[in-house]
Amino acid sequence: MEKVLIANRGEIAVRIIRACQELGLNTVAVYSTADRDALHVKLADEAVCIGSASPNKSYLNINNLLGAAQITNADAIHPGYGFLSENAEFAQRCEQANLTFIGPHSDTIRFLGDKARARDALKAIGVPVTPGSDGELTSVDDAQRIATKIGYPIMVKASAGGGGKGMRLIQSPDQLPKLFTLAQNEALEAFGDKQMYLEKFIDKPRHIEVQVMGLQDGTGIAVGERDCSLQNHHQKVVEEAPSSIDPATRNDMLAISKRVVEELHYLGAGTIEFLYAGPHQFYFMEMNTRIQVEHPITELTSGWDLVKAQLLIAADKPLPQPRAANGYSIECRVNAESAGKITGLHLPGGNGIRVDTALYQGYRVPPNYDAMIAKIISYGPNRQAAIQKMLVAIDETVISGINTNLDFLNRLLRTKQFQEDQFDIEFIERELLNTH
Amino acid sequence: MEKVLIANRGEIAVRIIRACQELGLNTVAVYSTADRDALHVKLADEAVCIGSASPNKSYLNINNLLGAAQITNADAIHPGYGFLSENAEFAQRCEQANLTFIGPHSDTIRFLGDKARARDALKAIGVPVTPGSDGELTSVDDAQRIATKIGYPIMVKASAGGGGKGMRLIQSPDQLPKLFTLAQNEALEAFGDKQMYLEKFIDKPRHIEVQVMGLQDGTGIAVGERDCSLQNHHQKVVEEAPSSIDPATRNDMLAISKRVVEELHYLGAGTIEFLYAGPHQFYFMEMNTRIQVEHPITELTSGWDLVKAQLLIAADKPLPQPRAANGYSIECRVNAESAGKITGLHLPGGNGIRVDTALYQGYRVPPNYDAMIAKIISYGPNRQAAIQKMLVAIDETVISGINTNLDFLNRLLRTKQFQEDQFDIEFIERELLNTH
Repeated sequence: MEKVLIANRGEIAVRIIRACQELGLNTVAVYSTADRDALHVKLADEAVCIGSASPNKSYLNINNLLGAAQITNADAIHPGYGFLSENAEFAQRCEQANLTFIGPHSDTIRFLGDKARARDALKAIGVPVTPGSDGELTSVDDAQRIATKIGYPIMVKASAGGGGKGMRLIQSPDQLPKLFTLAQNEALEAFGDKQMYLEKFIDKPRHIEVQVMGLQDGTGIAVGERDCSLQNHHQKVVEEAPSSIDPATRNDMLAISKRVVEELHYLGAGTIEFLYAGPHQFYFMEMNTRIQVEHPITELTSGWDLVKAQLLIAADKPLPQPRAANGYSIECRVNAESAGKITGLHLPGGNGIRVDTALYQGYRVPPNYDAMIAKIISYGPNRQAAIQKMLVAIDETVISGINTNLDFLNRLLRTKQFQEDQFDIEFIERELLNTH
Repeated sequence: MEKVLIANRGEIAVRIIRACQELGLNTVAVYSTADRDALHVKLADEAVCIGSASPNKSYLNINNLLGAAQITNADAIHPGYGFLSENAEFAQRCEQANLTFIGPHSDTIRFLGDKARARDALKAIGVPVTPGSDGELTSVDDAQRIATKIGYPIMVKASAGGGGKGMRLIQSPDQLPKLFTLAQNEALEAFGDKQMYLEKFIDKPRHIEVQVMGLQDGTGIAVGERDCSLQNHHQKVVEEAPSSIDPATRNDMLAISKRVVEELHYLGAGTIEFLYAGPHQFYFMEMNTRIQVEHPITELTSGWDLVKAQLLIAADKPLPQPRAANGYSIECRVNAESAGKITGLHLPGGNGIRVDTALYQGYRVPPNYDAMIAKIISYGPNRQAAIQKMLVAIDETVISGINTNLDFLNRLLRTKQFQEDQFDIEFIERELLNTH
């Protein structure tokens, strides 16, 4: 492996280029016509235009990407996150073209991409999943039997459902006959189908995810967990590492995650996402087969350089021993709320502050891509120190010329719930976006 | 302690303001008329103009500084480094005005400022100093007796000397009678004084310094050592932490440093500088009673936040427990080689890179002050990783509109001697600034 094409843009392309340069690997940037002046283009050794601004014509265009690799003689492709990073066909096409795809095998991506099948397969090897009916139901009696087994509250859902139709939250056995029948009638009316299923209702869970790595020799490593509960419409906003879950549950979760990696012969970096409801109550959601946006908080607290590790694993080279895990780290995602030219820029810095961004003063943020333009990451001996550092850093940040979510982040970080570590995955939508 | 006046400018003022803000302390910046647009002025809660561009009229003017503290009701002063940071009179005037001077007591500063007296006092408590005649000599016989005791090579020097006059390096006993007499005659001619002294000649030493802290209860902490051998005319250029000295010698050096702090009842952060000649051969040079420019490399490798620790010690508050020491860190000092407006600025960032600077795009670097405009600091699991990271970071840095030493740094970092950790305090002047 000597030359890596980075099939991405923005801060993650910059992150990967830097890691390649540290390892002495040559780099090829690709860019759409909207990204001619982007930082990743300036930093890479070579850059190839792969199409017009629309992602389908450039960053999602497999033929153009493979063509760019061919004309530059790249021998490896790093997909970053988003775009084609979890596209099994892209990974397979790389494999067929004898390009090292920096990630797991295409079969693994395909397998984990079928979320229902992956959930069933992992359940079979002992990974906890949300308890439920494990199949379809039509009668109140069946529903009552299963609900008693898994415990209330439960959620009944229409098998053919969507949009909240044919769905009911049931708190206790006496409510079941009436609410099940109501939901079933609604399902029949909306979808022409009375098949139902039920699941344990997880009230105000946390989103806890485990960063894992699989080595070429089959060893699985559970690097550490992150709390990514602060979300806005399923978009993570603020992430923390490690989490505040109890040590025994953390150990279980890490041990199970390591087993998943080893059972699947998973190669490279990945993330296993769980819903966490309380001590010893956590349930597998899905596994992401790529580097995550929020990987830096795990890097700072674990000592692993995860992107370098991805490159070294792909090149079948030994990984350096990381330092002992310690400290606490928080990431805030800075989002653009308008496109336009950055007329003034001051990013925070100094002790315990890391900024991952592709911004520069004079750069024009294009309207075509993801809104996330910078990640501000703080690192301190404990959660309180990391929060204090983040507040100072956010206060200091100046991004002029476009609108951003900096004020929202400031407000979120100052809530009692955040400060006291008392929140769940619906906190932002329930309590901060409420306009009443 | 509620409001801290920062009696400094540039990156160290920014560093201190951030630390104050994290601890919830209010901040007062001071500035000369040349620094109206400086970053530290923008970041502080309040700012007071203390005079014109010339340091004597502003940053070195004790009355103006105390006046600024009085009108803003500041109750503490952080002196930073340089300017008045090691001025005993300034510390004493602060004490008299009931302002907490963030540093040791004025008596300690005065004592350690008299380098010869400090050296003798520390020798008396067992700190190794360069072996020498411990007084004046006039005869060849006396010189021979002492030289035999301390071992060759030795350096004879005129007591009244300076500028290399009346000074000779003597490699072996047979050279002594002739060279001593030559040097003495030269001394008599140049200074009208034949008093001589001699010292062991330390060939190609390293500059190793120990970061220490003294707590209010008298406890001394030796935080860790730094190798600051890469100097250009006594100005440090690149620093590393920890150093490559052997563990047994390091332990000795740290133990002695801790003892110095405790014997002197030293309060706050300080640095004890040694010349290191080889295993178990190190000699006290001087103690600096302030935070050093190069403190970040110790912060990254030790886990201590040294500026926060200074503030907490001064406020008599408990220090947080730092994480375990680990990793390797390198600092490069980026110097301006001309004054002028920064027309383009791209600073490196991402994993393991810290930049301490007061630069921003559009800022005009004034011609009046220290040339050091940014510190680029890398941190990795080992020296090789920290070097790789630094090379990528220096390569990526863009500072347009003024001349800088970035090319020189690049050249220095790529020398075989730096890469292989084979250099001494004269390396830069001897091998990189040689124009022949």
